[in-house]
Amino acid sequence: MSALARRGDLLRLSTLFVRTLREDPADAEVASHKLLIRAGYIRRTAPGIYTWLPLGLRVLAKIEAIVREEMQAIGAQEVHFPALLPREPYEATGRWTEYGPNLFRLQDRKRADYLLAPTHEEMFTLLVKDLYSSYKDLPLTLFQIQTKYRDEARPRAGLIRGREFVMKDSYSFDHTDAGLDAAYQRHRDAYERIFTRLGLEYVIVSAMSGAMGGSRSEEFLSPSPIGEDTFVRTAGGYAANVEAVVTPVPDAVAYDDAPAAHVEPTPDAGTIDALVALANANHPRPDRAWTAADTLKNVVFAVTQPDGTRGLLVVGVPGDREVDLKRLEAALAPAEAEPAGDADFAKHPELVKGYIGPLVLGPQGAQVTAEDGTTSSAIRYLLDPRVVPGTRWITGANVADHHVFDLVAGRDFAADGTIEAAEVRAGDLAPDGSGPVELARGIEMGHIFQLGRKYAEALGLKVLDENGKAVTVTMGSYGIGVTRALAALAEANHDERGLAWPAQVAPAHVHVVATGKGTEVFEAAASIAEGLVAHGVEVVYDDRPKVSPGVKFADAELLGVPLLVVVGRGLADGVVEVRPRAGEAETLPVADAVAAVTARVEGLLA
Amino acid sequence: MSALARRGDLLRLSTLFVRTLREDPADAEVASHKLLIRAGYIRRTAPGIYTWLPLGLRVLAKIEAIVREEMQAIGAQEVHFPALLPREPYEATGRWTEYGPNLFRLQDRKRADYLLAPTHEEMFTLLVKDLYSSYKDLPLTLFQIQTKYRDEARPRAGLIRGREFVMKDSYSFDHTDAGLDAAYQRHRDAYERIFTRLGLEYVIVSAMSGAMGGSRSEEFLSPSPIGEDTFVRTAGGYAANVEAVVTPVPDAVAYDDAPAAHVEPTPDAGTIDALVALANANHPRPDRAWTAADTLKNVVFAVTQPDGTRGLLVVGVPGDREVDLKRLEAALAPAEAEPAGDADFAKHPELVKGYIGPLVLGPQGAQVTAEDGTTSSAIRYLLDPRVVPGTRWITGANVADHHVFDLVAGRDFAADGTIEAAEVRAGDLAPDGSGPVELARGIEMGHIFQLGRKYAEALGLKVLDENGKAVTVTMGSYGIGVTRALAALAEANHDERGLAWPAQVAPAHVHVVATGKGTEVFEAAASIAEGLVAHGVEVVYDDRPKVSPGVKFADAELLGVPLLVVVGRGLADGVVEVRPRAGEAETLPVADAVAAVTARVEGLLA
Repeated sequence: MSALARRGDLLRLSTLFVRTLREDPADAEVASHKLLIRAGYIRRTAPGIYTWLPLGLRVLAKIEAIVREEMQAIGAQEVHFPALLPREPYEATGRWTEYGPNLFRLQDRKRADYLLAPTHEEMFTLLVKDLYSSYKDLPLTLFQIQTKYRDEARPRAGLIRGREFVMKDSYSFDHTDAGLDAAYQRHRDAYERIFTRLGLEYVIVSAMSGAMGGSRSEEFLSPSPIGEDTFVRTAGGYAANVEAVVTPVPDAVAYDDAPAAHVEPTPDAGTIDALVALANANHPRPDRAWTAADTLKNVVFAVTQPDGTRGLLVVGVPGDREVDLKRLEAALAPAEAEPAGDADFAKHPELVKGYIGPLVLGPQGAQVTAEDGTTSSAIRYLLDPRVVPGTRWITGANVADHHVFDLVAGRDFAADGTIEAAEVRAGDLAPDGSGPVELARGIEMGHIFQLGRKYAEALGLKVLDENGKAVTVTMGSYGIGVTRALAALAEANHDERGLAWPAQVAPAHVHVVATGKGTEVFEAAASIAEGLVAHGVEVVYDDRPKVSPGVKFADAELLGVPLLVVVGRGLADGVVEVRPRAGEAETLPVADAVAAVTARVEGLLA
Repeated sequence: MSALARRGDLLRLSTLFVRTLREDPADAEVASHKLLIRAGYIRRTAPGIYTWLPLGLRVLAKIEAIVREEMQAIGAQEVHFPALLPREPYEATGRWTEYGPNLFRLQDRKRADYLLAPTHEEMFTLLVKDLYSSYKDLPLTLFQIQTKYRDEARPRAGLIRGREFVMKDSYSFDHTDAGLDAAYQRHRDAYERIFTRLGLEYVIVSAMSGAMGGSRSEEFLSPSPIGEDTFVRTAGGYAANVEAVVTPVPDAVAYDDAPAAHVEPTPDAGTIDALVALANANHPRPDRAWTAADTLKNVVFAVTQPDGTRGLLVVGVPGDREVDLKRLEAALAPAEAEPAGDADFAKHPELVKGYIGPLVLGPQGAQVTAEDGTTSSAIRYLLDPRVVPGTRWITGANVADHHVFDLVAGRDFAADGTIEAAEVRAGDLAPDGSGPVELARGIEMGHIFQLGRKYAEALGLKVLDENGKAVTVTMGSYGIGVTRALAALAEANHDERGLAWPAQVAPAHVHVVATGKGTEVFEAAASIAEGLVAHGVEVVYDDRPKVSPGVKFADAELLGVPLLVVVGRGLADGVVEVRPRAGEAETLPVADAVAAVTARVEGLLA
């Protein structure tokens, strides 16, 4: 059956609400953002908040339709929640606080607290609790395509990280773990079909460190240099978001023969490079030269909890690696981290900038006693997993211009724990033994996640099982960024001249350009445009009477409709030109144009 | 061409996310609200905020599709604005303040002010200003179907007055008044088609008093006893929202022979009835008996401006009429009014409750001088238009137990102006001379409004005209309450057993019920359901195995799908039963069922 509708839309450029811009907007950095603005698909209304013009809305509707079809195909049922929600359910799960400043909060005229929902786990859980009570009602999958809100600190890249955006979110409900696994797999398969139909290249990466146990979580990334997510993969099949990469932990090292730690003067060695050079000059190692990997760098962060409390955290990493702030934040979530500032240092004179060492940190440092009598480190200290017992380090002596050598982990110092916060580098070994990783960047398009029983427990969603016993339901949460997918499509399908949409999501299938001044040109072009529409083809028809061919072609390339039909000079010879947005032009007899172009469109949509 | 799709949806009740309720929800007062909840179409999430379950969402989508088609048919182009908007444009037009507590306001993490938009006049105006600059670009009509917010003081009747709701709003842009008239008429015609296709009875009423001049404004009301709007109409064709009714002003009366005003003791005459009785007893009128219409009742209100300032207003009306608070508020908008309270009276000892008269009010009362030297009445006094010069009144003497008689308007007292605030009654004469009015109630479904140049002026939307001169654009604003239309449809199409949707908006066309225990019943029912779906019919199939026929029929009537097909006992005789939701049952041979029911559905949709 034809993928075409009974009748296509005809968009005449003489009246279509669109104006193209020749210049890039000042605030746009990435190609999709620049081109979607320039081609008149969207307009910025406020930071991270956009208005959809007719062409953009058409593309958005097509993406939504594909997502909806594939969700329905796995039996998911569509519902629709409000965006404006009362505080209470989010309070019950702790997310009212955990979301911190990322949540838009407001009060109504009666001073009741509301939020603009960033996701709807709580509401879906409560709705199922309201309607269902038996294991016989399950499995159940619900979804919505809905406008969501997130008060991003740094909205960027147009639609890629916005504050008001459209998401498809779905939730599965099962009373057994096996049921959840099956629901998860159905979503995974559906997502593969969705991104394939959208014409989007994608990579499925693990989104959660194995350290967190059985729950599965994967992301669908569209590989792109402008993506915000970094992921790793190996030839052996490992793929993970860099935030989820687990460092293979080396074996502990025997340290019986290690020399005692000794403090040495290291003037002007406030950087790792200077320190290594000085160590090799003044304290040469017999077996090989010192390298940055022999130093232990202690980096001070201020960590803010969702409730606003702020404390210091020192992360110790081998000196040849930086701390990756995104990995750090992923490890600390929902807390947020930033490099410690002068005010933070001022409160802790034991931290000597450039010479910070373990002996004032964590268990070695000052301790504080809580009201309940438990003690904890005054300065929390977490180590990279590579700092295993027995490893020997050159590190700060907590005195200006001095470092300590041969400080042995497990002998001379300990920490409050380990943390996955060091940068991941190309060539690092994957935790599954599949070899060295390579790094790439991607745009997160989708996320599938085995929530388990967290929300059901917090909100009391239970069903009676086969034995009449109340059991807590296990849930999955599955998202697709619909507006973000549109931006990713633009990012993946453009050239220097404009957008180049896949036919499945293009605002129209064919762009008919009338070039010339004679009425016969416009009559022939209109006739072809209308003929195509009668066959179900969606047509942009550039019927503007006093616009030059050059401007018309430039606009056509900017708009990015897949097939261009030029009605102009060739008309005298009874031909029109057909030119794919990316491809070679050819001529067709006028009389065949409608049938031949319709067939091409059907081919593109097949 | 068939109105059916290529393939219909099949909704199996064994898995459909719906639970019907036998009891009315405690907080529901009107039938549509009760039934939409009981039939599992919507669920309440917060006051005036609802979640859409699958059946409700299907109806909503059908209404939206009809609205969209008819808007596109008049050349309106679809766009989509954010709901979360910055304060500035609404500040520029004054609406940030004017909306008062009806606006949901919030701040983002940078303390910038935002609102959840109740309507988008400002944004459309600015968008057109952004893209267009010439009269050649006009006329233009844009629309969106979008979620809107209004912090109603009294959300009520379910979807009829909600705080988050879906509206179609459209805006026309023209550079001439004739253009605006044409755009207005196109919308008026489109609205007639929309409400006709929805199967909704409607009345078009004037929504603005002629006193406001040339701008036209009309409302589309669905007549309903639970409607919030009262409207009047005459056999002669006059129809107006009661708030827009203009009182025909009587001619002035000569008062040369009127006696001088005289104060009389009127003990215990604090009510109009008591006063009239006492006047007839103690001060009989020679020509006829005094009636309540001879008394002038002065009612004290506290009026709160959008900026929060509060002042007193006294409205003088003939004693046989009440002040209609909705008419009063319409006349005072955007200010809000409420009966004055004890605290208000305490500040004005000159107001003697039950005996308030003109001589301490308005121009006769105390005056206040503003900073700019202008003076105004300390207690603003506005009169019903019937109180024309020369009319003689019995009214309060501003002394307890005393009234003044023969107080003549224009001779003994004046006012600060007139106001349309007295109740309108059946039998009142229409202002256009078309005779006495009757009153009815309706639900406001749509509103069309010639905005004129107000927003374009405030926001600087001009285009160059034929002579290269910048002219301010004139606009129209046109709304349809989409979620409210759904409620109105439910209100207009139900009986005591449940909903009864018109086929065009029903969640499905046919409800197939399998009654009985044999597998052959379920096989035959499934075969018919699937046969219908293959013909494009949308089917709810009650395939629940262990549910009694009584429950199944009750659910079918509650859900309100137009055609019921019963597969059960008759199967032994080779027949099934077809029963319209409202109509007589008949039997059909099983073999003909699919074709015959499909034909019926096509008939219903034609």
